[in-house]
Amino acid sequence: MLSTSPSLDALISEFARLPGIGRKTAQRLALHVLKRPREEAVQMAAALLDVKDNVRTCSLCCNITEDDPCTICSSTRRDHGVICVVEESNDVFAIERTNEFRGLYHVLGGRLSPLEGMGPDDLHVRELLDRSSEGVEEIILAMNPNVEGEATTLYLSRLLKPMGLRITRIARGIPMGSDLEFTDAATITRAFEGRIAL
Amino acid sequence: MLSTSPSLDALISEFARLPGIGRKTAQRLALHVLKRPREEAVQMAAALLDVKDNVRTCSLCCNITEDDPCTICSSTRRDHGVICVVEESNDVFAIERTNEFRGLYHVLGGRLSPLEGMGPDDLHVRELLDRSSEGVEEIILAMNPNVEGEATTLYLSRLLKPMGLRITRIARGIPMGSDLEFTDAATITRAFEGRIAL
Repeated sequence: MLSTSPSLDALISEFARLPGIGRKTAQRLALHVLKRPREEAVQMAAALLDVKDNVRTCSLCCNITEDDPCTICSSTRRDHGVICVVEESNDVFAIERTNEFRGLYHVLGGRLSPLEGMGPDDLHVRELLDRSSEGVEEIILAMNPNVEGEATTLYLSRLLKPMGLRITRIARGIPMGSDLEFTDAATITRAFEGRIAL
Repeated sequence: MLSTSPSLDALISEFARLPGIGRKTAQRLALHVLKRPREEAVQMAAALLDVKDNVRTCSLCCNITEDDPCTICSSTRRDHGVICVVEESNDVFAIERTNEFRGLYHVLGGRLSPLEGMGPDDLHVRELLDRSSEGVEEIILAMNPNVEGEATTLYLSRLLKPMGLRITRIARGIPMGSDLEFTDAATITRAFEGRIAL
């Protein structure tokens, strides 16, 4: 950088380490911090440390939490007979935002990906098998619709089928609000495969 | 938010306060911090506080600095006879990146904008006039090419003209690498007005 302050350069470098934040955005963010009151920087600094100190993994669902088990796993108002398996914690947030799903979750912590060196032992598969015996009726697989996600879905369904549970996957098809005209062929194919009788 | 951790929610809120960072991006950044080693969060927290503690304004050019006067103002290898006037500190970085300009800068801290309540007294105009008497030969006005920038350029040129200095402005025209075909009419008009004899 060509700024006139090493402290500012350091903050720009820190911001630029975040995913999706380039040099120029990092510079804009750092200058914003510089302009705002000191207490805002103090709050952000404290929030950064709090996250590292307070957040851990739920021993049941492997989602991030501060209490173990997490608020979802320990809730009595949720359906403990259904487990939705997702790749990452942010998938849980995305599904929770719909306010529709009332079951529990299981966070794998990734997906099968030989290219990234992620095998079954790197995912929380063991924990899922351990949970799947006790009063669980259905396991919904909600991996992302790409090659690795499909492979993970296939792997888990083969592993779970012998346990006599109902194994489902979420539908792949035309997203709401989009046009058939602009939808790719693979998605349309999936939408036809997943058609529902009316 | 619907996360299962108040600390994570707090960090997401802090990131979401930054300009251009929405809720979803903030969530992605916070989860990234969660995944990385604790020391990275410590470093970012320290950088945030360092910036607020160490960075101040150069008493000569009003640019951000840690030493007063700043490294540019106190450099003996730069041309102290030329001052480039810009709106904000990030404009200085943008110009420094070219490695072409060897004069000094003056950061106004904004631009004339009645809508935003920015008048001449809110900018570092007084400081510019104070500097402009001592051995300065040329003042280059490098405001952004929009209505407020043009108004600021006009205001400063009228103020500085009576001091007998050479007052210039940077050229507005077709940016390098672009097509005439896709350039807006206002830019083409400026390019014609600013044509140079070959």
